[in-house]
Amino acid sequence: MTPEQPRSSDRHHVVIVGAGFGGLEATYRLAGAPVRITLLDRRNHHLFQPLLYQVATASLATSEIAWPIRYLLRGRPEVTTLFATVSGVDVQGKRVLLDDGDSLPYDTLILATGVRHAYFGHDEWEPFAPGLKTLEDATTLRRRILVAFERAERETDPQRRAALLTFVIVGAGPTGVELAGTIAELAKDTLPPDFRNIDTRSTRVVLIEAGPRVLAGFPDDLSAYAQRSLESLGVEVMLNEAVTECSADGVVYGGKTLQARTLIWAAGVRASPAAEWLGAPHDRAGRLQVNPDLTVSGHPDIFAIGDTVAIDGPDGKPVPGIAPAAKQQGRYVAQTIKARLRGETLGPFRYRHSGSLAQIGKHKAVIDFGRFKLRGAIAWWIWGIAHIYFLIGLRNRLSVAISWLWIHARDQRAARLITQGSSKVAR
Amino acid sequence: MTPEQPRSSDRHHVVIVGAGFGGLEATYRLAGAPVRITLLDRRNHHLFQPLLYQVATASLATSEIAWPIRYLLRGRPEVTTLFATVSGVDVQGKRVLLDDGDSLPYDTLILATGVRHAYFGHDEWEPFAPGLKTLEDATTLRRRILVAFERAERETDPQRRAALLTFVIVGAGPTGVELAGTIAELAKDTLPPDFRNIDTRSTRVVLIEAGPRVLAGFPDDLSAYAQRSLESLGVEVMLNEAVTECSADGVVYGGKTLQARTLIWAAGVRASPAAEWLGAPHDRAGRLQVNPDLTVSGHPDIFAIGDTVAIDGPDGKPVPGIAPAAKQQGRYVAQTIKARLRGETLGPFRYRHSGSLAQIGKHKAVIDFGRFKLRGAIAWWIWGIAHIYFLIGLRNRLSVAISWLWIHARDQRAARLITQGSSKVAR
Repeated sequence: MTPEQPRSSDRHHVVIVGAGFGGLEATYRLAGAPVRITLLDRRNHHLFQPLLYQVATASLATSEIAWPIRYLLRGRPEVTTLFATVSGVDVQGKRVLLDDGDSLPYDTLILATGVRHAYFGHDEWEPFAPGLKTLEDATTLRRRILVAFERAERETDPQRRAALLTFVIVGAGPTGVELAGTIAELAKDTLPPDFRNIDTRSTRVVLIEAGPRVLAGFPDDLSAYAQRSLESLGVEVMLNEAVTECSADGVVYGGKTLQARTLIWAAGVRASPAAEWLGAPHDRAGRLQVNPDLTVSGHPDIFAIGDTVAIDGPDGKPVPGIAPAAKQQGRYVAQTIKARLRGETLGPFRYRHSGSLAQIGKHKAVIDFGRFKLRGAIAWWIWGIAHIYFLIGLRNRLSVAISWLWIHARDQRAARLITQGSSKVAR
Repeated sequence: MTPEQPRSSDRHHVVIVGAGFGGLEATYRLAGAPVRITLLDRRNHHLFQPLLYQVATASLATSEIAWPIRYLLRGRPEVTTLFATVSGVDVQGKRVLLDDGDSLPYDTLILATGVRHAYFGHDEWEPFAPGLKTLEDATTLRRRILVAFERAERETDPQRRAALLTFVIVGAGPTGVELAGTIAELAKDTLPPDFRNIDTRSTRVVLIEAGPRVLAGFPDDLSAYAQRSLESLGVEVMLNEAVTECSADGVVYGGKTLQARTLIWAAGVRASPAAEWLGAPHDRAGRLQVNPDLTVSGHPDIFAIGDTVAIDGPDGKPVPGIAPAAKQQGRYVAQTIKARLRGETLGPFRYRHSGSLAQIGKHKAVIDFGRFKLRGAIAWWIWGIAHIYFLIGLRNRLSVAISWLWIHARDQRAARLITQGSSKVAR
């Protein structure tokens, strides 16, 4: 665009791995800098993870919360988007290694590779209690939830039918709370008129949490409110209970066995292997320990941001693994790179907590803005408007607004589809 | 609802296998009859197949053209919907056999089990040239099409890159024509600004047809118009060419090899195994040969309707395998069952051809209403309005209208998602 720029291949080359909230924000904020950028992701889409639980519960379609990464950057000729999987980093040669044998040189590297759910040494539980991080995770959960009701409709044995109509969510953070509330509403409001042999209102939704309260990241009173709201939706909240076994039959916790055919894991995460690629220090969850300027120790040309990083905020508490934190870090790193190219330096990264939000069913939410707290219907409206605001593009905003309108006005959920499995192969 | 009805289990039991256009229409039209109905399908959703090619080409989301079957019948307490796969029929015992060992008694049976795509004795071609009949087929094609562009962006060898940017569609019926036109527009209008290393406008879309013209079911002049329109979109139309080989490298036709990494099969269908279940006469494509009242010979209590049936219309030509034909047959069978329960009989089924429509790219269509024919932009508007009209529910009509508006106004396609495969596993 600007005529006097050097040939693009001579420019400082920033390689960004991961097009989540952090990686995408860094790419956006590097606009206008004298760099060329390569953005790598092993998916072709950026995912709006805060609403992923709504895909898992048939409320939203996959395409309503995902955008092709290269489409988002179509107006940025200096950005090349590559659909590729990173397998390591050659820090000496300054190259990113790809799983197909290719590699890519970098001048500056930004690792924004996120997390997966983790089973604390019990990976054998994953087939029975899948987690929720990707679109495929969401459509898998959606299939399992919907198939459980379908199979219950055909089951004549009361015990097996009860197990099919028991849904267990392990972990009562925002994802667990939001899943539990939405599944309860699906069973109580959306599905009853559609079934003949079962009363879906008899569905049990059990939320098991190892800690002493739900939404541990929120103030005590909002946690208590969230628990009461869940219980009024019919969710059974079990606190201070550690799950000791997940199997095809159900879960074991506190020595008790709960027969359930659908388990969902929302209890913990493990960072991507970025720390292994670099041989760099990390915490127990695999998160990279970074310098105050978000560079990796001994590698001033490598930044790490987002969920894959462990760093403390100004209040001494860990920066939470949420979208606004990743975006702040992406913005900070972009500014740091721009400053360096001008020969300047910036102060350390300072996290500013803007607030925490969680939805509890279709009419309630809790919001903690620090200075003020909100709960109930008004909080739900703020929650809804904020999420529509943060979606990308008018088309998806319209589409999600219509989907929510139908859920609220008619208890009709847009995407009750069982895919990747006919009745023959569906578990 | 009506107080004096007999206990529902004493009622005449109609079992309907398949909730496509025919099976669903029969269910709707039996409303008010003194029967109870069980509707079986191995999918949980009714699919609007005429727009399936738009899911395959990233224009529409899966949930925009599919509805949970039991939701559509929520207001009909005498209808039980079961998510189940039929494996046979015990005509002596009058029972439908399910693949899990269960069975279901019927008084009257309606088979509306449809077709799959067929390879004319070359089933080994299926992995290389998938067809398009289910939602999973559509998301598989979508993944292959989008991955081909992604891999071309990273490919440096010119020959391999050209093969990645060559898309071959085998069969120039409505599905083949609609796929070819839409892929050409995707490459020419939607994708160019998003790629840096390739010019997606250099994409080749090749439509191979064994017969002498495209859209063989339409009048000659509309076929010629459709071919010209496709060619103006850049589609290469090869007529009178039989494909003799499909492989990972491409296709062979007329002794020539065309290197292509993406092949799509739109060349033929084979009926579901309903004829095998009954040991009844069928044509070469496996379609049941039925009596003029759509009953199966020797089985007056078994009807067969829709694509799985071969029957001639009043003009002596075969009834086409399209949605309006299946719906007419579903309606006729419902009326026949009602008449029989009153002790009456109806005359034979008479097919009335209401018209044929096909879209060619986003601004043109051809319509053959028999008495009058239409082509071009006005035909496209009629095509679009007709398809939105036949969608079910205001929500999906709104949603599809918005999706089409964005395609037309901004060349932005709603669902450019590669799912069920990261860059690591995507072919």
